[in-house]
Amino acid sequence: MKIENIDLSSYPNSEKFYVEGKIFPVKVAMRRVKQYPTVKIEDGKRVEYPNEDIVIYDTSGPYTDPNVKINLNEGLSRDREKFVEQRGDTDVQADITSEYGRMRRDDSSLDAIRFPVAHRPRKAKDGRRVTQMHYARKGIITAEMEYVAIRENLDNEKRGIPSYITPEFVRDEVASGRAVIAANINHPEAEPMIIGKAFATKLNTNIGNSALSSGIEEEIAKAVWSCYWGGDTLMDLSTGDNIHETREWIIRNCPVPMGTVPIYQALEKVNGDVGKLTWEIYKDTLIEQCEQGVDYFTIHAGVLREHAELVKKRLTGCVSRGGSIMMQWCVLHNEESFLYTHFDEICEILNKYDVAVSLGDGMRPGSTHDANDEAQFLELEVLGRLTKKAWEHDVQVLIEGPGHVPMNKIPENMSKEAECCHEAPFYTLGPLTTDIAPAYDHITSAIGAAIISALGTAMICYVTPKEHLSLPDLNDVREGVITYKIAAHAADLAKGFPGANVRDDALSKARYEFRWKDQFNLSLDPEKARTYYLNSRREAPDADDRFCTMCGPNFCAMRISQNVADKCTVNE
Amino acid sequence: MKIENIDLSSYPNSEKFYVEGKIFPVKVAMRRVKQYPTVKIEDGKRVEYPNEDIVIYDTSGPYTDPNVKINLNEGLSRDREKFVEQRGDTDVQADITSEYGRMRRDDSSLDAIRFPVAHRPRKAKDGRRVTQMHYARKGIITAEMEYVAIRENLDNEKRGIPSYITPEFVRDEVASGRAVIAANINHPEAEPMIIGKAFATKLNTNIGNSALSSGIEEEIAKAVWSCYWGGDTLMDLSTGDNIHETREWIIRNCPVPMGTVPIYQALEKVNGDVGKLTWEIYKDTLIEQCEQGVDYFTIHAGVLREHAELVKKRLTGCVSRGGSIMMQWCVLHNEESFLYTHFDEICEILNKYDVAVSLGDGMRPGSTHDANDEAQFLELEVLGRLTKKAWEHDVQVLIEGPGHVPMNKIPENMSKEAECCHEAPFYTLGPLTTDIAPAYDHITSAIGAAIISALGTAMICYVTPKEHLSLPDLNDVREGVITYKIAAHAADLAKGFPGANVRDDALSKARYEFRWKDQFNLSLDPEKARTYYLNSRREAPDADDRFCTMCGPNFCAMRISQNVADKCTVNE
Repeated sequence: MKIENIDLSSYPNSEKFYVEGKIFPVKVAMRRVKQYPTVKIEDGKRVEYPNEDIVIYDTSGPYTDPNVKINLNEGLSRDREKFVEQRGDTDVQADITSEYGRMRRDDSSLDAIRFPVAHRPRKAKDGRRVTQMHYARKGIITAEMEYVAIRENLDNEKRGIPSYITPEFVRDEVASGRAVIAANINHPEAEPMIIGKAFATKLNTNIGNSALSSGIEEEIAKAVWSCYWGGDTLMDLSTGDNIHETREWIIRNCPVPMGTVPIYQALEKVNGDVGKLTWEIYKDTLIEQCEQGVDYFTIHAGVLREHAELVKKRLTGCVSRGGSIMMQWCVLHNEESFLYTHFDEICEILNKYDVAVSLGDGMRPGSTHDANDEAQFLELEVLGRLTKKAWEHDVQVLIEGPGHVPMNKIPENMSKEAECCHEAPFYTLGPLTTDIAPAYDHITSAIGAAIISALGTAMICYVTPKEHLSLPDLNDVREGVITYKIAAHAADLAKGFPGANVRDDALSKARYEFRWKDQFNLSLDPEKARTYYLNSRREAPDADDRFCTMCGPNFCAMRISQNVADKCTVNE
Repeated sequence: MKIENIDLSSYPNSEKFYVEGKIFPVKVAMRRVKQYPTVKIEDGKRVEYPNEDIVIYDTSGPYTDPNVKINLNEGLSRDREKFVEQRGDTDVQADITSEYGRMRRDDSSLDAIRFPVAHRPRKAKDGRRVTQMHYARKGIITAEMEYVAIRENLDNEKRGIPSYITPEFVRDEVASGRAVIAANINHPEAEPMIIGKAFATKLNTNIGNSALSSGIEEEIAKAVWSCYWGGDTLMDLSTGDNIHETREWIIRNCPVPMGTVPIYQALEKVNGDVGKLTWEIYKDTLIEQCEQGVDYFTIHAGVLREHAELVKKRLTGCVSRGGSIMMQWCVLHNEESFLYTHFDEICEILNKYDVAVSLGDGMRPGSTHDANDEAQFLELEVLGRLTKKAWEHDVQVLIEGPGHVPMNKIPENMSKEAECCHEAPFYTLGPLTTDIAPAYDHITSAIGAAIISALGTAMICYVTPKEHLSLPDLNDVREGVITYKIAAHAADLAKGFPGANVRDDALSKARYEFRWKDQFNLSLDPEKARTYYLNSRREAPDADDRFCTMCGPNFCAMRISQNVADKCTVNE
C-alpha cells in the first residue's frame, strides 16, 4: 500500500519543528516559514533588513517531517501511547470485544486488504472513566491539554502577544464542556487538538467511499491530502465495501482525530434494510469502532418519532443520511429511536475509550427555504438535553449544525445553540447561504461558515465543489480544505484570536515589498499562487520583479506608493 | 473581428423573452428556464404535475437571443437611442470635441484596428442637463426608469409576490441619489439597469489589458463572457496599447453599462510620467470617453495632498492605482489634486452626457492591517462632500469602497459610508476578509462582499482567482462572476429582496425530486454542475436517477426521506 500522485513538497522555504512541553515530554509540531530580507538602497548602498520566521499551525503530521520515514503498512508512530499508559487507568484487552470486529479479523478472505499490523485495543479498567473531561473535572492537566495549549499559541510568547491560553485554561474549558479534545485512547497516532470557541477555528473534512466508487488506497490518499492542506479533523463517511478495513488503514495512518457516523456501517451490516436495524447491531458497531480508535461519533440521537410529521411541511424533507435512517426506523417500528432510548448506555461505552459524541443534526435544513424551522429547533432542544446527559457520564460533546441557511438567519442558529446546548462546541456544515450554485457550494457555504465561526462556532465541516453532485476527488479535497481554511482564518481575525493577524501582516508586508517568494510561501496554497504568477510571467519575459501582469509597470500602485514614501522618485 | 472559443450554449432548456413596457415601448429582456414535470406513481399510475417556468434576470444582452445575428464589426443595435432622441434635449455633434479623439480618428495607421463604424457623439444642448437624476428630480419617469422597474420585478406580479418597485419608486430613488442608472447617451447599445440598495445587488467585472498582455479580440471576448455569466456592469481598466480603440470596440458591443478610470489613459498619454499630468490632458480624456459612451468614471477626487503623510503609517501604503497616481502628483507639485480643485467643472462635463461619477477610494486598505484607518475614513468624508457637490450638478454618484477588511470591521464601513455619503450607492471591491490566500481571493473577498451587500452595499466589484498575481483570463472571468453572483444573491436572500427566493426554492424542489436536469438548468453555472455529475456517473453506469455517487443508493437521505413521506416503503 502506498500513496500515489500526492506531491508533498508544496511548502517551500519552510520547515517542521517541535516545541517541547514544560509539564510533560510532549513534542508539539509546528511549521516555520523562513523569509527573505527586505532590501533597501540607502546612500547608494544595498542594505538588508532581515524578516522574522512566521510560525504556522501544522496539521500535516509526520508526513512533512523529512526525518520520518513513512511506511503506510506500519502506520504512524504511536507517540501519545505513553501518556495514556502512564495514567494507569486502562488495560490492553486480551481480545477484541466486538463480535463483528472478531469476525472480520478471523475472515482470511480479507487478508489481502487488511492492515498488516494487528491493533490490540485498549479500554478503561472496570469502573474507570478515561475522558479528557473526566480528568479536567478532577483538576488534572493531561499531556493532551498541555499539547494543545502549546499548539494554539504558536510563537505568541516569543512575539510578546498576550494570550489567555494556558494548560489550566484548556483544562477549565474542557471541564466546562465548552471545548473538546477528541482523543480515543486507541488512536495514539493522532496529535492532540482542541475544538472550542476560545480556540482557533477548526475545520473538518469528509472522505470515504460509497457503494459506487473509491478504494482503500484512494481513501488513504484523501486522508493524507486533507491533513496536508490543513484539515484539523477527518470524518470517514464510507458507506461502500470493506468499511472496517478501510477505517483501520486510515486510523493507523491518520495524524488528526477521526470521526465516523456508526449508523452507516450498522446499516451496511443489515444490507441497507432499515427495518432490520437493531440496538444490538448498533452497539456492537460502536464497540468495534471504539476499539479501532475512532475519536468521535456522529450520533443522530435527537431525531425523534414526531419529526416524521414535521418534515412533511418542508420543501426538502430530511437531508441528513443518519437522520433520515433513524426517522424511517421510528416510523417503521412506531417506536422512539434506539439512539435516544439507549443514550445513557452509549455514553457508558464512549467514556471507556474517550470517544466524543458529536450530536448529529438529523433535521438540518437542506434548502434555505427550510432554515430555522420547527423541526430543526425542536431537535436542537433535544440535543441540549442529551448534552447534559452525556456530560453526566463525562463524555465530551460536539453539537452539529446546518446546512442551508440564508445569511440573515445564521445568527439565530448560533445563539440558540449556545443557549439550548449550554455552550457545547458548535460544529456546522457550512451553512450554505444560497441553493442556486451546485458546483460552487464550497463558496456558497464558506460565506456562511465564516459568518457563523466569527459568531463562535468552533469547527466547520468543509464542503467541496462536488457537494450535491458526486464524491470528491483529491483536487476537490484540496479546494475544499483551502476554502475552509479561509473561512476559519477570516473568523479568527474577526474574533481577534491571539496572533491570528501575524501571518496576514507578514504576507502583506512581503507583497508590498515585492518579495514574491515570501508572499507565496506564506499563503495557504503556495503552489497555486506561484503557478498563477509564473504562468503569466512566462508570457512576459522582460518583466522585472516590482509589478505583475495585472497592472504592468506604470500602474503598480504599491510601487508608486513606495516611490512617494521614498522621496517621490517619479519612476525608478 | 470575431469572438473565438466562447461557447454561448451553456443554459439548456431556457429561452430569452421580452416584457413590454406600459408607459414606453421598451422591451425588457429576461430568461425563462423551463422545468420538467414532477412524476408520481399514484394508484399504480404515472401522474405528471407540471412545474412552472422560472424567470431569471438576464445580463447577456442580444448574445443569447437566437433571433439576433451578432456582428462584432457592426456593434449591437442601438435600441435606447430613440428614447434619448425623443427627449429632444440632445444633439448629434458635427465633429468630435476631444482633441485626442480627433487625432486618433485621423491617424490612418490605426485603420487596421479601428472599429469600422464611426460613432457620431451626442451631447446635451447648451444649458441642458441630461442625467437620469435631472429628469427624476423634475418628476419625470424616463424609459430607462420603466425598463429597470420591469427588470427588477421579473415575474413577481404574475406570482403574486408583493414588490415596492414601480417606475415611480425608481424615479424617487434616483432623484434622492440612493440609486443610479448609469446610461451615457452615447451608449445606446446598453440595456438599462439600476444600482441601489433597494434593488437587486449588482456585480461589476473588471477587464482590460496591461502593457504586458492582451489584445482587442481578447478583451471583447472577456466583455461578452462577463455579461454572459452574469456581470451587471463592466469596467475596462486597460492600461496598455490602443486604449481608445479597444474601448470603442467594447462599448459598441457591450450590452451593459461600462466604466473606466480616465486617469489611466491620461497617464498613458504622458508616457507614464506622473509629473507631466495636467488638468487639460485629463479634461480632454474625460470628453473623449464621454463621447465614446463610457457610462461611469472612477475619479479619485478624494485623495488629497495630506494623504501622503497618512499612508506612511500603513503596512501597505496606497494600493489604488488611481489613488497612488494622484497622491504622487500632489506631492510632486506640492499642490492639491486637480481632480478635487476642478470637481465642479468635471460635473459640468458629465451632466452633458449622463456619465455617473464613481468616487474612487484611493485610500482603500490593501491589507487587513490597514482597514478602517485614518487615511481611509478621511477620504470617505471628502467623498461625502463631493457627493453633495455632484448632486448639485445633477450628476449621479457611486461611492467606491474597500478592499481588505476583516469581518468584524465590515459593518463600520457600510454605516460610515451611508452617513458620510448621504446614502449614495456603495460599490465595494470585496472586501477581502484575510490576506493569506492569493490564488483564492475570489473566495476571501466573496465572504466580505456577501456580508457588506446584505448590509446595504448596492454593487460589488468581482475579484478573480488571479488577483494580486496576474491578469485574469476567460476562465478567471467566469469563476469571478459566478462567485460574485453567489455573494450578491446570498445578500438578496438575506435582505428579503422581493422574489429572490423563487429560484432557490425551485432548484431545491428539483433537487429533492431528483429532477437533475432542472437542478442544473436553474443553477448559476449549469454546464459545470452537469459536468461534475456526469463525470462521476460515467464511472458508475448502472446508477439510476434517484441518487448520486456522493452517497450511493442506500444512503441518499432525500430518497429515504421521500419514502417516509410516501407511506414508508423501506426501499423502492
